[in-house]
Amino acid sequence: MKKILLLALVLPFLASAQFTEDSIFIKKISDDVLTNGKAYDLLHSLTKKIGGRLAGSPQFAQAVQWGKTVMKELGADTVYLQETMVPHWVRGNGDKVMITEENGKTKNITLDALALGNSLGGNVTASVIAVKDFTELERRKDEVKGKIVFYNYPFNPTYIVPSRAYAESGVYRRNGPSRAAKYGAVGVLIRSLTEATDNNPHTGATAYNDSFPKIPCAALGLADAERLWVMCQSSTVKVAIHTHAQFLPDTIGHNVVAELKGTEQPDHYITVGGHLDSWDVNEGAHDDGAGVVHTIEVMRVLKALGYRPRHTIRFVLFANEENGLRGGEKYATMAKEKNEQHIFALESDEGGFTPRGFGVTAPIASLQKIQSWLPLLKPYGTETISAGGGGADIGPLARNLKTPLAGFIPDNQRYFDVHHARSDVFENVNKRELHLGAVNMAGLIYLVDKYGL
Amino acid sequence: MKKILLLALVLPFLASAQFTEDSIFIKKISDDVLTNGKAYDLLHSLTKKIGGRLAGSPQFAQAVQWGKTVMKELGADTVYLQETMVPHWVRGNGDKVMITEENGKTKNITLDALALGNSLGGNVTASVIAVKDFTELERRKDEVKGKIVFYNYPFNPTYIVPSRAYAESGVYRRNGPSRAAKYGAVGVLIRSLTEATDNNPHTGATAYNDSFPKIPCAALGLADAERLWVMCQSSTVKVAIHTHAQFLPDTIGHNVVAELKGTEQPDHYITVGGHLDSWDVNEGAHDDGAGVVHTIEVMRVLKALGYRPRHTIRFVLFANEENGLRGGEKYATMAKEKNEQHIFALESDEGGFTPRGFGVTAPIASLQKIQSWLPLLKPYGTETISAGGGGADIGPLARNLKTPLAGFIPDNQRYFDVHHARSDVFENVNKRELHLGAVNMAGLIYLVDKYGL
Repeated sequence: MKKILLLALVLPFLASAQFTEDSIFIKKISDDVLTNGKAYDLLHSLTKKIGGRLAGSPQFAQAVQWGKTVMKELGADTVYLQETMVPHWVRGNGDKVMITEENGKTKNITLDALALGNSLGGNVTASVIAVKDFTELERRKDEVKGKIVFYNYPFNPTYIVPSRAYAESGVYRRNGPSRAAKYGAVGVLIRSLTEATDNNPHTGATAYNDSFPKIPCAALGLADAERLWVMCQSSTVKVAIHTHAQFLPDTIGHNVVAELKGTEQPDHYITVGGHLDSWDVNEGAHDDGAGVVHTIEVMRVLKALGYRPRHTIRFVLFANEENGLRGGEKYATMAKEKNEQHIFALESDEGGFTPRGFGVTAPIASLQKIQSWLPLLKPYGTETISAGGGGADIGPLARNLKTPLAGFIPDNQRYFDVHHARSDVFENVNKRELHLGAVNMAGLIYLVDKYGL
Repeated sequence: MKKILLLALVLPFLASAQFTEDSIFIKKISDDVLTNGKAYDLLHSLTKKIGGRLAGSPQFAQAVQWGKTVMKELGADTVYLQETMVPHWVRGNGDKVMITEENGKTKNITLDALALGNSLGGNVTASVIAVKDFTELERRKDEVKGKIVFYNYPFNPTYIVPSRAYAESGVYRRNGPSRAAKYGAVGVLIRSLTEATDNNPHTGATAYNDSFPKIPCAALGLADAERLWVMCQSSTVKVAIHTHAQFLPDTIGHNVVAELKGTEQPDHYITVGGHLDSWDVNEGAHDDGAGVVHTIEVMRVLKALGYRPRHTIRFVLFANEENGLRGGEKYATMAKEKNEQHIFALESDEGGFTPRGFGVTAPIASLQKIQSWLPLLKPYGTETISAGGGGADIGPLARNLKTPLAGFIPDNQRYFDVHHARSDVFENVNKRELHLGAVNMAGLIYLVDKYGL
């Protein structure tokens, strides 16, 4: 009885002393990142010295060396490359989409367009059938043969979380070309997956169905999509699509892996990562330069504060998220082959915006444990820790090893304005917002490392 | 007994039916603002057609007419102007700050500088005494006579809420000049109140103490402040300040007031507002074009949805927040003179960023009532409704009439990058973020109107 009473008295005290200790350490993380953080400067060098870096490109190879060098310099215990074959898609020069005829009259109106990622080039000129969605396509399937199908499916502005709109309209980019080719279409145009107020087209991977012809396909900026849509309502419109994309043979790519060695359980791993590749048309600043420099900054600050982790923490810059996911697959395959114990993985791949929380995919007990830390992270912007979330690159870890996952969730109201568009450049990333993301991520990693899951 | 039981059964049901009804109406507000909202387009016309609009300027007079016309067109029951005298400070052309000598050697290094608002122009060339804060000034007060004092007080990056850093360093802008003049300084330079990564100087009002000479004073961009600071550590540096600001006689300005007439208590008022004036050097996009178009958008959407308010809702574009507050004072004075009942006032003056909540200054019962609505606003971004807050223009209402106040709190990590600098332009406002602010404000106004306080 006495012992239990004592325990009951002591536990809250311990809990509170622990809380204080953790809260002091996370404040140190925050102060250091906001004062000495390198994430913004690193993002500058990645985006401005290297720029767009699709898997297989020379720029991606440069980025691998950049990541290796940077993480060594910042004091990783070890840095190594993890080789994997990656697809080698090249856009070729000069995607071109033009309105060539309206009601039989010759026109010469260039639309701003980008071929969809993983699509194959082609030169077609044909009448346009403009549809608002797949339902309309199915209803009018008999009109499709020999035509260019234009999907003008809007990015729903009423969803408060824009990624919901992305998920909904994303099927037009992924499946639109083959669903149109099935009925004999010779080309496809889509309205870009965005609400941006500019006219930048947004690329991103399409996924051909091998059963149908692999027809050329491109995304239009919003102003041009609107223009074409309106024109098609009252006119017969002919459009020419000229794209030059092709797949070269698969080539060698690498994940960059840095480690801070665990002092107590070095064979138990915590992974923090983002993807090093980006689309070819921009600087990949938010997608996913931000995740890359978040990852490196978490390592930098833990090292700078002299933190000695209990578990081994891996900082991984993944290859090929955008058009193949081979980096993430490789990482999980290797982990399984080596029979590694992975207790947690965190990815940042939703941009370098002001933090709002984390999404966690884990057994309920682990989720609740993470949620119990909310008061420690709340002062730095983490408002919610919700069920569900992770990241494309760490997904295979969960599938292969049942690793609990978390995804960093920033405020992403601006994300789809720049996502996969030419405008995803360094200038559209804010230093404080970027650094605050690293603060919250480092805080979470510290807590997972200290208390386990 | 039976009645009480019935009531106990019915009340939660009513509460829940009410909750559902409110939640449906707020969803309608959100859908309408995010689909048909005019705030972004209005901000474009205010910032691009009129631009900077300091009280007393021709541009401010144009903005008054603009506001009147816009609110009439959007269906206000009445729109009228409320006249008040406003200060008429003019910068004059070409603020200039130059390093003219280093250790006796002639130099010609121009620093990017802006005279502080409400300061008087002057031409002085003198040695610089660079201090980090008032403590150092006091310690070295005997060295100050005949010199230019340069305060290099930093904007503390470790505060998660940047307005805390603003409050702390703001005293150097407001009181720095007179505190230096007291010891015989002939001019003052300050480090701009920002953490921005560019070199833009940030103006803003200073407040001379009439007991001391009104010496010229200007703010330096961060890169130039750093440069001057470093130079002063090892060299004797002379600087020339040339500013040309003056006060012309007070002139006529106006608040623009639009009303939606109350159907049940037309003589009880709810105020929503932002300030129409801005500094002269920029477009006043976030400060406070955003608050202006938030205010108009709240009116637009309530009107568009056919909402008939119980109380009279006033939509007020205040004059002269930046350098005098005469508009807010006038509004409260008139309210008191007419013995008006003001049940609530809400201001938006922290920028057009993604919403995070509201700060409320009200009796505890009113605060708790507002906080009980959090679940209704949370889906739209309101994370917290906290004690304390309001706005400069509605402050006098609280002082004169004890009106409960609220201030809209957006995520303001980027605010002080542009605040009072040339970079506060339309291009730095994001459409979705701006419109989401209006959604949350309109939701709150609807709830206050429906349930009272």
